[in-house]
Amino acid sequence: MSTTATRLAALRAELARTGLAGFVVPLTDEHMSEYVGDYAQRLAWLSGFGGSAGNAVVMRDKAAMFTDGRYTVQVRSQVPAELFAYEDVPKTSVAHWLAEQVKAGERIGYDPWLHTRGWATGTAALLKAKGAELVAVASNPIDAVWTDRPAPSAAPIEVHDDAFAGRAHADKRAEVAVWLKEKGADAVVIAALDSVAWLLNVRGRDVPRTPVALAFAIVHADASVDLFTAPEKLTEGLRTHLGADVRCLPRDAFTTALKAMAGKLVAMDPQSCVAAIFEALEAGGARILEARDPTVLPRAIKNKVEIAGTTAAHVRDGAALTRFLAWFDREAPKGGLDELSAAERLRQFRAETNSLEDLSFDTISAAGPNAALPHYRVSAETNLAVRMDSIYLVDSGGQYRDGTTDVTRTLVVGTPTPEMQDRFTRVLKGHIALARAIFPAGTKGVQLDALARQHLWAAGLDYNHGTGHGVGSYLSVHEGPQRIAAAWSAQAGGDEPLQPGMILSNEPGYYKTGEYGIRIENLVLVERREQPGAEREVMGFRELTLAPIDRRLVDVTLLTPEERDWWNAYHARVAAEIGPLLTDAADQAWLAEACAPL
Amino acid sequence: MSTTATRLAALRAELARTGLAGFVVPLTDEHMSEYVGDYAQRLAWLSGFGGSAGNAVVMRDKAAMFTDGRYTVQVRSQVPAELFAYEDVPKTSVAHWLAEQVKAGERIGYDPWLHTRGWATGTAALLKAKGAELVAVASNPIDAVWTDRPAPSAAPIEVHDDAFAGRAHADKRAEVAVWLKEKGADAVVIAALDSVAWLLNVRGRDVPRTPVALAFAIVHADASVDLFTAPEKLTEGLRTHLGADVRCLPRDAFTTALKAMAGKLVAMDPQSCVAAIFEALEAGGARILEARDPTVLPRAIKNKVEIAGTTAAHVRDGAALTRFLAWFDREAPKGGLDELSAAERLRQFRAETNSLEDLSFDTISAAGPNAALPHYRVSAETNLAVRMDSIYLVDSGGQYRDGTTDVTRTLVVGTPTPEMQDRFTRVLKGHIALARAIFPAGTKGVQLDALARQHLWAAGLDYNHGTGHGVGSYLSVHEGPQRIAAAWSAQAGGDEPLQPGMILSNEPGYYKTGEYGIRIENLVLVERREQPGAEREVMGFRELTLAPIDRRLVDVTLLTPEERDWWNAYHARVAAEIGPLLTDAADQAWLAEACAPL
Repeated sequence: MSTTATRLAALRAELARTGLAGFVVPLTDEHMSEYVGDYAQRLAWLSGFGGSAGNAVVMRDKAAMFTDGRYTVQVRSQVPAELFAYEDVPKTSVAHWLAEQVKAGERIGYDPWLHTRGWATGTAALLKAKGAELVAVASNPIDAVWTDRPAPSAAPIEVHDDAFAGRAHADKRAEVAVWLKEKGADAVVIAALDSVAWLLNVRGRDVPRTPVALAFAIVHADASVDLFTAPEKLTEGLRTHLGADVRCLPRDAFTTALKAMAGKLVAMDPQSCVAAIFEALEAGGARILEARDPTVLPRAIKNKVEIAGTTAAHVRDGAALTRFLAWFDREAPKGGLDELSAAERLRQFRAETNSLEDLSFDTISAAGPNAALPHYRVSAETNLAVRMDSIYLVDSGGQYRDGTTDVTRTLVVGTPTPEMQDRFTRVLKGHIALARAIFPAGTKGVQLDALARQHLWAAGLDYNHGTGHGVGSYLSVHEGPQRIAAAWSAQAGGDEPLQPGMILSNEPGYYKTGEYGIRIENLVLVERREQPGAEREVMGFRELTLAPIDRRLVDVTLLTPEERDWWNAYHARVAAEIGPLLTDAADQAWLAEACAPL
Repeated sequence: MSTTATRLAALRAELARTGLAGFVVPLTDEHMSEYVGDYAQRLAWLSGFGGSAGNAVVMRDKAAMFTDGRYTVQVRSQVPAELFAYEDVPKTSVAHWLAEQVKAGERIGYDPWLHTRGWATGTAALLKAKGAELVAVASNPIDAVWTDRPAPSAAPIEVHDDAFAGRAHADKRAEVAVWLKEKGADAVVIAALDSVAWLLNVRGRDVPRTPVALAFAIVHADASVDLFTAPEKLTEGLRTHLGADVRCLPRDAFTTALKAMAGKLVAMDPQSCVAAIFEALEAGGARILEARDPTVLPRAIKNKVEIAGTTAAHVRDGAALTRFLAWFDREAPKGGLDELSAAERLRQFRAETNSLEDLSFDTISAAGPNAALPHYRVSAETNLAVRMDSIYLVDSGGQYRDGTTDVTRTLVVGTPTPEMQDRFTRVLKGHIALARAIFPAGTKGVQLDALARQHLWAAGLDYNHGTGHGVGSYLSVHEGPQRIAAAWSAQAGGDEPLQPGMILSNEPGYYKTGEYGIRIENLVLVERREQPGAEREVMGFRELTLAPIDRRLVDVTLLTPEERDWWNAYHARVAAEIGPLLTDAADQAWLAEACAPL
């Protein structure tokens, strides 16, 4: 019996013991995080699935894995077909599949700490229509059978110095208190880990790739905070940093505290506060005000110190990436490179900056056909050699105390085909159109998305992902609320007005299944622009990312003079800002050539 | 005492008699129409206001007019300041203003036949919070004091031949019946006049500029229809056309019929069905299903016959407009033209096609500074002479049996300033960018809007209106659901996916207050495009409108080669399709020159 079969059988026995006909296994944690710690990797433990988004449902006599288009291939290679059916999201959903499977009288369990209230309400209604019931479990049945489950990380919570944060946490807490007053609310529950980190100027090492600490916060109208976290994570230095207005309480006291808010009007964000938080507040007699987490927008609008920090981090990171690009260009044609070794070499260049805290996400190091998978993650099983006359795509980033980076470069080894050049140039023209855009106050990302796609659309081509996401300051590499995406995107955020100080990625692409993939990604900063004779307040983007784009993939005849001007100005900046950081003569010479005018 | 003062006093006396502290006077009819018949012009009668959108509220000791930015100037010139305060929408709203004015215990009246349920519910809640009450009146108090109020039009309902409609009404009714079955509903109330007209292939002459007839319809699950309209509007020919499955009932029987639907599930569109319809259904014990009017989308997607019809109408209309443009170019420099005489001459050219049924809206004939008002409507008071070295803007359209047109041309008399040329060329570049756009299935208007604005934005400029609206087939010149507009637009529709067969306007502009205005508007048809090597189904626009754009306003040095190619190809089409319809040699010569390559 395989490991997966054994674990599935154990879970089914536990479900039988507790009278459940089925159980839903999501991939998240108590904070609705995108990336989660080992202790919360229940889906991976149960099914073997290694992707970063998915759900399983286990019934008595069948089980199913729910993944989206990114993981169609991966789920089939990692999750045994004889144990799990494969279901495609959004064609189906856990709720609709369950509604088809259940029989009247059955009880289906879910862990209220791992689902939103909205999901639970919607799913419960569908099951009720079939005479079945959705039941919140008191403890997760997987935890009962996962005998060697890791404990949540006990890493100390770290102080994020004001020299990086640019604002004292007292100032941020006061801003939330003003928001509470405006809403007429008594308190707000902050459940998102990056919101807690931003609010209190703290960071942590509890989740890979995102420097956050496991904690909940309740902010009161007097700007004081109850911080709920494991006591072993608290150092003397941290207590000093937090001060008397931030009361440190054990994580276990969180539910009790929620239940003690009788009669108070408590704000909470239904996107990040799980169903169990709703239930505890309701059980205790609090009134609930659903509202967006009040730290989301101020966190997205970087202050001057954060802007200076991310600018410095991007120059440092750009120098490391440039060293990699020069090295790759020398080594790849010799043969012998593969995706894993290239990604490791890039990590080393970043580490040699001596200020790398972590990568900001698992590097997408993709050769040839693997580059056609926008969310590819290299593993020993999928590792491809870098071959001549092919494309290599590397999407990577670093976590530095002063900023978070995220950059994609698409490189040719040997000679590209004319089709590759055509597609690359269309992607580039879209990238430049967005980079050069000037737009008035109030403009939302959904309005700008087509600028990046128009030259692909003109040839009947497109890419199946958003064009831009927000990025944190030594925080999440995917941070809301702003986003540049098509209106039809499943992910929200495209309707958030862009504001000066926001960071966004600009990353159009093109993917030819089984052959190659292209993406050109820079991070950009929204800033005010002074146009002579302007009648409106207008904004534009300043490039944060500084590293050469592969000129050998450009069909220069397809560029307008304005597009060539943009290319030349950008590369002149790269040469001027990155050049002085290179110490190796070969690297310097490579950069000069890479940045010569087109 | 002025007329307005007398009428206001009469209304106040009537309100006092019926125990109302105030009354809301909107500008609409029982069908939530944009344009309304004389009988429903209560706001104009009461206040003297001649704009096409606004509301008044009359209280015991004060009254206010609520208009948006389009009418800031007009309302002040037409409505006496000593009688009405001027309130700007959306800065304030009737509901919020009322909530500030009312005292506890007061009753404020509204006519439930002239407001949506949504408005009534929201306003009632605000008044209730102040201890006041919003009360539906049994009959409109204005009608009690408007002694010479015209009766609703008794014009016969006309058959819209299948040769124009392209589909029999039995086929359309069957489609609605399928929709009802999908929804599990028993019937749907169709209140919008253009929906009734489209559904039954009928037209009318009850509302200026829009060829609709005053009627309500209820479609049942068996595809039969109850049509409620004044009996005098029914001819023998019409009854034959409608057949046995369309039961003609008096307009007065409508409320009774709604009240007789006990236990049925009745669909209705809350955007076009007024509060009184909700109330009658609820009073009768029907269950209500709120859903978009099921005729809206099929009406927007024109069939082959309608496309052929609108194409023919646009060639005919383009020839009439071209004759006007040539005439204007000869006459304007001589002096003596003004806005009114120019508009009348244009109407004559259209009438000389011998197929003009009506204008499709009041012509915007705007000289010099008046052109800076995007929604300007010429009157004897505002009529300006057309002067040398200035701009004249004409936005106009015709109603023909085979199609509805809407076109704007901006003309220079004499010599334009370099600034005028710069602005005109930026508007033109945006117009061309949208005209040339290729986009995949699923794309919504909000995604394309920035294409038309980008070159203005780059100079810190913009325009305060949408870029494109839908247009009917011998129906409303403003027809939903599709729309090309910024996400922040107050008007909905930008999030409707564009589909082949939809007609849209493409009308970017630029307005310099007190000096001049620019707009370039063509109607375009969404059509599928075959791109070699396409991986997605893509669509593009085909120009329906054919008339020269004023080349003297173009700064050719600002155009890209692709933009010049578009201009030349468009004008070659204009020359080829309009030229043969011109009989006058001077007009022919003028067109040839106007259409020569740039």
